[in-house]
Amino acid sequence: MSEKAVKKAVVLLSGGLDSTTVLALARSQGFECYALTVNYGQTHVSELQAAKRIAEKFAVARHQILKVDMSCFGGSALTDPSIAVPTEPSQGIPVTYVPARNTIMLSLAMAWAEVLGSEDIFIGVNAVDYSGYPDCRPDFIQAFTQMAALATKAGREGRGPTIHTPLIEKSKAEIIRLGMELGVDYVDTVTCYQADEKGRACGVCEACRLRKEGFESAKIPDPTSYQNM
Amino acid sequence: MSEKAVKKAVVLLSGGLDSTTVLALARSQGFECYALTVNYGQTHVSELQAAKRIAEKFAVARHQILKVDMSCFGGSALTDPSIAVPTEPSQGIPVTYVPARNTIMLSLAMAWAEVLGSEDIFIGVNAVDYSGYPDCRPDFIQAFTQMAALATKAGREGRGPTIHTPLIEKSKAEIIRLGMELGVDYVDTVTCYQADEKGRACGVCEACRLRKEGFESAKIPDPTSYQNM
Repeated sequence: MSEKAVKKAVVLLSGGLDSTTVLALARSQGFECYALTVNYGQTHVSELQAAKRIAEKFAVARHQILKVDMSCFGGSALTDPSIAVPTEPSQGIPVTYVPARNTIMLSLAMAWAEVLGSEDIFIGVNAVDYSGYPDCRPDFIQAFTQMAALATKAGREGRGPTIHTPLIEKSKAEIIRLGMELGVDYVDTVTCYQADEKGRACGVCEACRLRKEGFESAKIPDPTSYQNM
Repeated sequence: MSEKAVKKAVVLLSGGLDSTTVLALARSQGFECYALTVNYGQTHVSELQAAKRIAEKFAVARHQILKVDMSCFGGSALTDPSIAVPTEPSQGIPVTYVPARNTIMLSLAMAWAEVLGSEDIFIGVNAVDYSGYPDCRPDFIQAFTQMAALATKAGREGRGPTIHTPLIEKSKAEIIRLGMELGVDYVDTVTCYQADEKGRACGVCEACRLRKEGFESAKIPDPTSYQNM
């Protein structure tokens, strides 16, 4: 493959099930992957360790962990230890919602993409989440793309980023089946909103519930390590 | 004034001439001001000290300094010491352009505004800059506003932020005259792209040149402290 044929992509990698699948997919499509993990002050730091493991396993061109302490603003169960993570399905937008998180992450990815000369950003937003989170929905992604075309030098020159959301319409079971085909070992991933320091899942939060149901529905044994096991 | 009548605003405050004027203006309009300074890895740290001084002088409700190390991406003379700050006017977009900087800052301001229950964000972008920087132009601000209405819980509920850009069409001289009327003491502000640790300006970079010309054109004595004085 000639130098010219290698396309670079910035892949937002949290260390969870969805973003890991997206990284595997971007790689399978021939992209040279630059993984960006945002340490936004999440109370579950084992996610970051998972991201490191996964970035290494998938031999990304570079893995950048960037600290942006969104916990200074508060307002989310994921960044504020005084707000409990719910164990029942939520009505409307859940307290695990982190204000503007995807906008901030996509903006950072856009900055990196411009410096790298990349026109492709991958993010693992998906249908299961977008019922709850405003910044996981297709209309948001479309509006972000329009803004991005005006926000950067690259954008103004017609090289604004395409935001790839390959999971946006998929169920968890479909995502898991896709990842298995691409060689993802989900034991590496941490999904739980309150995983312990070893990355073991609580098994009762909304994120655990969706993940569990995904494996059940895909008829694939759940490799997750739970705290009560 | 009743509790209800106090409106909160998030004001992006760099410590420079423009953002300080914007803070003074937001306060004069009766907003309770929450100043957000992003330490993005700029090589001129005396800007941050200026922001602190100014936030204190204007008695903001809170001043949040948030570190987001955009220098990890590189690509700008303001974050990468190996790229020289130019001393001549640039053609096109200058090397002092920091990729996606205003998008990232506005996204962070949007997050804080949502948590505060504020619908107003102030940013000091202005006409002199938008000839060079893509993310200082009116079409970018408009696209960001449209995106913001879909990005957050508040936005989805019709309480998305208004992005106030009161300086966008003003010349430096007009900005300075406005600030003087509002009681700004420009000696507190740091504009220079390569100010020294005491905040003294180089006098030769593009930012210094525009600031100097602004004072000359406004027929107001320039209070800036220069390194060669």
